[in-house]
Amino acid sequence: MTTPFARRTSRVQPSAIRELLRLGDDPSVISFGGGYPDPAHFPTAELTSIFTDVLASGARTLQYTASVGLPRLREQIAARMTRDGTPCTADDVVITHGGQQGLDLTGKLMIDPGDVIATENPTFLGALLAFNPYEPDYAAVRTDDDGLDPAHLDEVLTRHPRAKLVYTVPDFQNPTGVSLSLERRHQLIDVANRHDVVVLEDSPYRDLRFDGDRLPTLASLDTEGRVIHLGSFSKILAPGLRLGWMMAPGPLLDRLALLKLAADTQSSTLNMAAVSTYLERHDLDAQIVRANASYRRKRDLTLATLDRLMPADVTCTRPRGGLFTWLTFPEGFDTGDFMRDTLLPRARVAYVPGATFFPTRQEPNHARLSYATLPEETLVHGLGLLAHHYAAAARAG
Amino acid sequence: MTTPFARRTSRVQPSAIRELLRLGDDPSVISFGGGYPDPAHFPTAELTSIFTDVLASGARTLQYTASVGLPRLREQIAARMTRDGTPCTADDVVITHGGQQGLDLTGKLMIDPGDVIATENPTFLGALLAFNPYEPDYAAVRTDDDGLDPAHLDEVLTRHPRAKLVYTVPDFQNPTGVSLSLERRHQLIDVANRHDVVVLEDSPYRDLRFDGDRLPTLASLDTEGRVIHLGSFSKILAPGLRLGWMMAPGPLLDRLALLKLAADTQSSTLNMAAVSTYLERHDLDAQIVRANASYRRKRDLTLATLDRLMPADVTCTRPRGGLFTWLTFPEGFDTGDFMRDTLLPRARVAYVPGATFFPTRQEPNHARLSYATLPEETLVHGLGLLAHHYAAAARAG
Repeated sequence: MTTPFARRTSRVQPSAIRELLRLGDDPSVISFGGGYPDPAHFPTAELTSIFTDVLASGARTLQYTASVGLPRLREQIAARMTRDGTPCTADDVVITHGGQQGLDLTGKLMIDPGDVIATENPTFLGALLAFNPYEPDYAAVRTDDDGLDPAHLDEVLTRHPRAKLVYTVPDFQNPTGVSLSLERRHQLIDVANRHDVVVLEDSPYRDLRFDGDRLPTLASLDTEGRVIHLGSFSKILAPGLRLGWMMAPGPLLDRLALLKLAADTQSSTLNMAAVSTYLERHDLDAQIVRANASYRRKRDLTLATLDRLMPADVTCTRPRGGLFTWLTFPEGFDTGDFMRDTLLPRARVAYVPGATFFPTRQEPNHARLSYATLPEETLVHGLGLLAHHYAAAARAG
Repeated sequence: MTTPFARRTSRVQPSAIRELLRLGDDPSVISFGGGYPDPAHFPTAELTSIFTDVLASGARTLQYTASVGLPRLREQIAARMTRDGTPCTADDVVITHGGQQGLDLTGKLMIDPGDVIATENPTFLGALLAFNPYEPDYAAVRTDDDGLDPAHLDEVLTRHPRAKLVYTVPDFQNPTGVSLSLERRHQLIDVANRHDVVVLEDSPYRDLRFDGDRLPTLASLDTEGRVIHLGSFSKILAPGLRLGWMMAPGPLLDRLALLKLAADTQSSTLNMAAVSTYLERHDLDAQIVRANASYRRKRDLTLATLDRLMPADVTCTRPRGGLFTWLTFPEGFDTGDFMRDTLLPRARVAYVPGATFFPTRQEPNHARLSYATLPEETLVHGLGLLAHHYAAAARAG
C-alpha cells in the first residue's frame, strides 16, 4: 500500500526516549520515571461501594448521555472551581477524557499549521504530543524558579506574529515542579491581553500543594475571556477513571463541546456517575490532605537525600507541591546516555531524561524525578544509587 | 478577544437538526431518534459484581496503563475477531474510547485538507462530524439495498485523484439498516486495491444480526493491508463504558497508537478491566442472542406496522439486523419541516430527519427510525401517529 498518511503524521513519531522509558517498566527497576500518582491513595473501598450503588440505580448509568458530560458532575466541578476562587457554573464546563484530551481539543480548536505556541522551557511532553499533529511551531519561554518569565514571553510574542496560544502549567509544573509566582500570573494575563493570544492553563497538580498559600488560577485573573483552564481527577482521585474537565469562556467552550462530540461522543457515563457520587458522599479535600501528607514526606526525603549524597555540581528544583523535582547536571553531561549505559544496566534505576521536555532546543543535561510512587526506603536507596553512579561517572569523566 | 480559531473549525458548526433532536429528549416525546441500544439488555447485575471484584483485585485497575489498552482485553478482542473469521492477534488491536474515537483517529492519520473521502450515500453523521475537522471533501457513492455500489465507487475514485479513504458501515448501516452483499464486499476490496485507497470498515452493529448468514468482514478479505476495522462494545454490552477497538495493518496501527496516546493517553483502565472480566466470566454471544431476539421482534413489528398503516408512497428499508430502518417519502416532502411543524407539536413523535446523513447533497425526504429502545406498544402507537399525520399532510399537501 502506498497511500500516504496525512502530512501532520510526520510530526507523530516513535521516540527513542519513550523506548528507553519502557525499560523502566521492568518491576525490578527502581523507577523515578512515571508521572503516576501513588495508588495507595486511591479510595478503592469507597469507589467499590459507589460503583455498586451507581449500577444498582438503573441501567441509565450504562447508557449514552450528553456529550458535554453528566449535568450533576458539571455542577459539582463548577462548585469546586468556584470555592477555589474561580467562579463559574456548570455551563462553563465540559467534561473530558482526562486532562490530556483537553490539550488535544485545544490544539484542534486553535492551531493552524505554522501557528506558534509559546510554552515554558522545558514543558510537559504530553502537551507537545497532543499539539504536534496540528503542526504548530513552538517558541520556548525562559523559565526559572518562579515559572515562566512574562518579560521574555512578551519578547517572544513580539517576535512571533503568528503566536496564538500560551501553554502553561502554573502549579507544580511537569517536569520541573516549579510554580508561577503571583506577580507573574498577573503579568502573564497582561501580556496575553496585549498580544491577543489565548492562554491554556493546565493544572492537574493544583491541589497537591504541600507548603505556602494557594495562588489564584489564571482563569480567575482573566479579564478578557481568553483563558482555557484544564483540570483533572487523575492526580487527586484516580487516573484509571480518565476524567478531567475544561473550563473556558463561552465562545471557546461552544466549539470545544462540538469537538468533544466529534472526537469520542462523550466521556464514560458510568465513571462520571461514580465520581459525582464520590463528591456527594465523601470529602475529596480531606482525601487530598491525606495524600499530600505522604507526598510531602517523600518530597522532603528526596530533597534531603539529594542534598546529602549528590555531588554539588548537580542542582535540583525545590517544588512546593506536585510529583516532580528536576535535576540539572553539568553542561555536557547526557542523562539519556548515562541512564542507558550505566544507570539502568548497573543500578537498575530509571528517571525520565530531560531532553524530551524541550519544545525547541533539547538540553541533554537534565532529568525528571518523580518521588510519588516509590516506598520511602526504596526512594532513598534509589537516590543513593543515582548519586553513587553519577559521582563515579563524574570522576571517570 | 479577536484571536481566530483554526481554519478547520469553520467545518465544526452547530446544526439545526441537532437542535431539533434535542426537542426529542423530552420524555413525553415518543422518540425514534436516538441511536441507542435498549438498556433492558445491559448486563447490569453481572457488571455490578464484576466492578466489585475488579476494584477489590487491587488499586492497579485505577492506575494508568498502556496507551494501546489492557493487554488481556486486546487478546480477548483479537480472539473474538479471529472466531468471527478475521484472524488477528493482540498486537493488531488498539482499544479506543468507543467506535467514534476510531473515526477521529483515522481522519487524523489519513486526511489532509482537500483529500477526498468516499462514503455511502447517505452515511453515518458521527463519521462526518469526526472527519470534518480534517477538512476533507466528500464523494457520495450510490447506495441501494445491497449497500454501496462498487462500480459507482470505481467511477467516483477515478474522478477524484485525491481520494484517500473509503468509509463504509457494511453491516446494518447507520442510517439505512442495509448491508453490503458478499459479492460487493469482494468487489469493494478489488476497487480499493486498484485505486490504492484505505478502507475504513466501521462495524458497531455487526453482531446484531437477526436473519441470514454472517458475511465476512472487509478486513478478512483485505489482500494488501489497507483495511482499518472499527468495533465497539457500545451496542453489544453498554455504551456508557465507552470502549471500542481498531484493528489495522501494522504500519497504520503503529501510527494510530501514537495518535491515541496523544489524544487522551489511554482508555479507562477500570472499564477495560471490567469488560475483560465480563468476557472471561460470561458468554457475550449468548447475551447478544437474547438482545437480538428482542430487537428482531421490534424490527418485525416496525415493518409490519409501517406496511399496514403507512401510505404506499412511503417506502422503508428491510434491515436484517441493527437498530434502524430508513423511510423515503415522496420527492418534495421535507421530513425536517414535517417534524418541526406537525409531528412534534401535534403528535409528540420524533425521528432523525434524513438530510443530516448526506455527505454532499442533502435529500430532505428521508427519515431514520430506530426501533431499538421503545416498548413494543409505544412503538406501534408512535408509528400509527406518524402514519396518520403523514397521511393527513399528504391529503392536505
